[in-house]
Amino acid sequence: MTKNPSPAQMPVSAFYGEIDPPQRLLMGPGPANVHPRVLRAMSAQMLGQFDPEFTVYMDETMALYRQVFQTDNHWTMLIDGTARAAIEAALVSLIAPDDLVLVLRFGRFGLLLTEIVQRCGGRIEALDAPWGEVLSLDQIEEAVRRLRPKVLAVVHGDTSTTMAQPLDGIGAICRKYDCLTYVDATATLSGMDLNVDRLGLDVVTAGLQKCLGGPAGSAPITISPQAAEAIFHRRHVEKGIAPADLKPGNGPMIRSNYLDLAMIMDYWSERRLNHHTESATMLYGARECARVALQEGLANRFRRHDQASRAMVAGLQAMGLTLFGDLSNKMSNVTGIEIPSGIDGEKLRGLMRDDFQIEIGSSFGPLKGRIWRIGAMGYNCHKHNVLITLCALETTLRKTGYGVTAGAGADSALSVYDGQA
Amino acid sequence: MTKNPSPAQMPVSAFYGEIDPPQRLLMGPGPANVHPRVLRAMSAQMLGQFDPEFTVYMDETMALYRQVFQTDNHWTMLIDGTARAAIEAALVSLIAPDDLVLVLRFGRFGLLLTEIVQRCGGRIEALDAPWGEVLSLDQIEEAVRRLRPKVLAVVHGDTSTTMAQPLDGIGAICRKYDCLTYVDATATLSGMDLNVDRLGLDVVTAGLQKCLGGPAGSAPITISPQAAEAIFHRRHVEKGIAPADLKPGNGPMIRSNYLDLAMIMDYWSERRLNHHTESATMLYGARECARVALQEGLANRFRRHDQASRAMVAGLQAMGLTLFGDLSNKMSNVTGIEIPSGIDGEKLRGLMRDDFQIEIGSSFGPLKGRIWRIGAMGYNCHKHNVLITLCALETTLRKTGYGVTAGAGADSALSVYDGQA
Repeated sequence: MTKNPSPAQMPVSAFYGEIDPPQRLLMGPGPANVHPRVLRAMSAQMLGQFDPEFTVYMDETMALYRQVFQTDNHWTMLIDGTARAAIEAALVSLIAPDDLVLVLRFGRFGLLLTEIVQRCGGRIEALDAPWGEVLSLDQIEEAVRRLRPKVLAVVHGDTSTTMAQPLDGIGAICRKYDCLTYVDATATLSGMDLNVDRLGLDVVTAGLQKCLGGPAGSAPITISPQAAEAIFHRRHVEKGIAPADLKPGNGPMIRSNYLDLAMIMDYWSERRLNHHTESATMLYGARECARVALQEGLANRFRRHDQASRAMVAGLQAMGLTLFGDLSNKMSNVTGIEIPSGIDGEKLRGLMRDDFQIEIGSSFGPLKGRIWRIGAMGYNCHKHNVLITLCALETTLRKTGYGVTAGAGADSALSVYDGQA
Repeated sequence: MTKNPSPAQMPVSAFYGEIDPPQRLLMGPGPANVHPRVLRAMSAQMLGQFDPEFTVYMDETMALYRQVFQTDNHWTMLIDGTARAAIEAALVSLIAPDDLVLVLRFGRFGLLLTEIVQRCGGRIEALDAPWGEVLSLDQIEEAVRRLRPKVLAVVHGDTSTTMAQPLDGIGAICRKYDCLTYVDATATLSGMDLNVDRLGLDVVTAGLQKCLGGPAGSAPITISPQAAEAIFHRRHVEKGIAPADLKPGNGPMIRSNYLDLAMIMDYWSERRLNHHTESATMLYGARECARVALQEGLANRFRRHDQASRAMVAGLQAMGLTLFGDLSNKMSNVTGIEIPSGIDGEKLRGLMRDDFQIEIGSSFGPLKGRIWRIGAMGYNCHKHNVLITLCALETTLRKTGYGVTAGAGADSALSVYDGQA
């Protein structure tokens, strides 16, 4: 072994200390704290990507995420990147230049879908709801019937506004008009019910850092047989690794290599056709996220998020705060609060962090400085965290000069948990 | 807390066991085993991506990788994906449709560059060397002078052939003819000398899973001021988060959102403009990889890889095996061995794995079944691992019926380490 050099030979930045983050409780719109079981799983040593033990872990991960997505889709796997990588993988693989895409938008992440479709060369039609609302099924059906898009793209829960678009019926409309559906479930998977097969959705993607209780950096995806067929129609196999018996498709080449779902499916298939080097560490983490979720049971998990949402809403309203948006379509894992006039929203967030080590969120664009966002998701979605956050918010509001009824927030939330509200 | 359901309620796959990989020693072309300090760093708890403590870690990571890349480039950071994500980020951000790109190819990863350029819409000219050789500076200068490409793209060490393209002089030629250089240093960074500023390179990318001793899933990148200017000329800011004072560029929009380096630079800038959610866990790991490398000292690290390479070569040759390619341009961290006729290369690899828990590699395309690849990189690049691997290979060759001089491999390698060869 090489001996470490003496400190005099070492560059200044080598003295940057070890990773030692403060004890933050992350009650914003995500990321949330990571389940300790997931961190432990990720500390396991590396395996080669074609090691027979590793490919078993890959197959198990597929089986686990089929259950998390509530689907029989064979092509259910991970994208090596953050949630946004999976969104782009889905869109760039489904959309060829000049394909018409209908984007449903009710917040910033709907705008992101449009932005990505634009870069894929797709033609865009958008259906917009005011921020704080969602779209009606009638509006959606009318637009699909009139426009006959190739793909409909929608965010399930758009954390920027805290609204969740009801998905019931959308898949059936799209199948009727021969349109593929893409759903971005980054912020909701395993926190809100999302039964991919019952809803008849084609491609659904997520991330680990919200309700799944993992870190950002790996993104689960599921692909229906219809969507897989469309994507394989655009299969292009790299020179230098192409097996003689693997037929390329005759559709237009997918514009990305890294995010080419046809190649990624061939990599996750029994062929194990080389593509990227799977991040074993992130796969270990993603697999453990799914095990934790399935061992709890999805129904229990949805109930836990719903209960925390009701407790949080009751607590915030009891404090006299006004919540943002149409509460009947609020995501269960995040709540928007209108910042009372005269309060500096960023200053309060800083005080929450400094005094209580609790992070809450602000928002984007027109809602920047107008709302806070408080999340309770994944590993953080528990009674004590809801109560602690409400107590911290009350104390901090008082410190900034905004009077709220002392004690009302936590008491009301506790009543929900105790079944008295 | 929700109680776990009883086993009867649990789905079958929830019983998949905990992550518990076998004790493999990864002596292939990468991934290699991860340094335990890196795994420990990655087990730290999450921070919000805009937490002031987290942005300090981001800035420190930039400073650390400037030293690893031997550059003053401000824009030195991480891409959230595997090495291939950073390759594509570099190419899709530098290359607009119809731009001419000169690709130097001497193996499979050169073909990959061509493939990605094609998907970016670039026009391709390629300069090819037979697999096992590299290109001469004269050939390169002639081509650049004749073709005047916008970008020259080359792999530093192409693990498919184990060859390393000498980079001296390429940067100067390109700057003379106003051509930007892109170098894929996935397999060499911190193992072979690569002084980005002295070589005059524009964009260089890497991965953690080779000489840096980390897991795949985060990819360091450095960008020269000239390249950054070209990329910012194509800056496009997302609707929904665009600050009023941030001017978009007037160049053609970059075809990817996730891999748009202009957006990624704005995210890593003091503006912290929201893009993806940085994978804190992978950043913790990447930061620790750099700390480990810099504390050892880059020169010591290059020497350690070079010594292991000479020992491995001596050992393999003493065993009577024929090495692949032009040894004067061999990468120091991986060695190609021609599979002796009559030996089933895959069977031997399986035996090495089953009997010794050692993984060695095969190769791609024309070299599939023709060579093995043995690596000694990063945390695995130590005397004992070189010796163990040679002993294991000898024993396994004997078991498969191929006679080698008993003991010659390890003895010769040890002589190199003891300074007697």
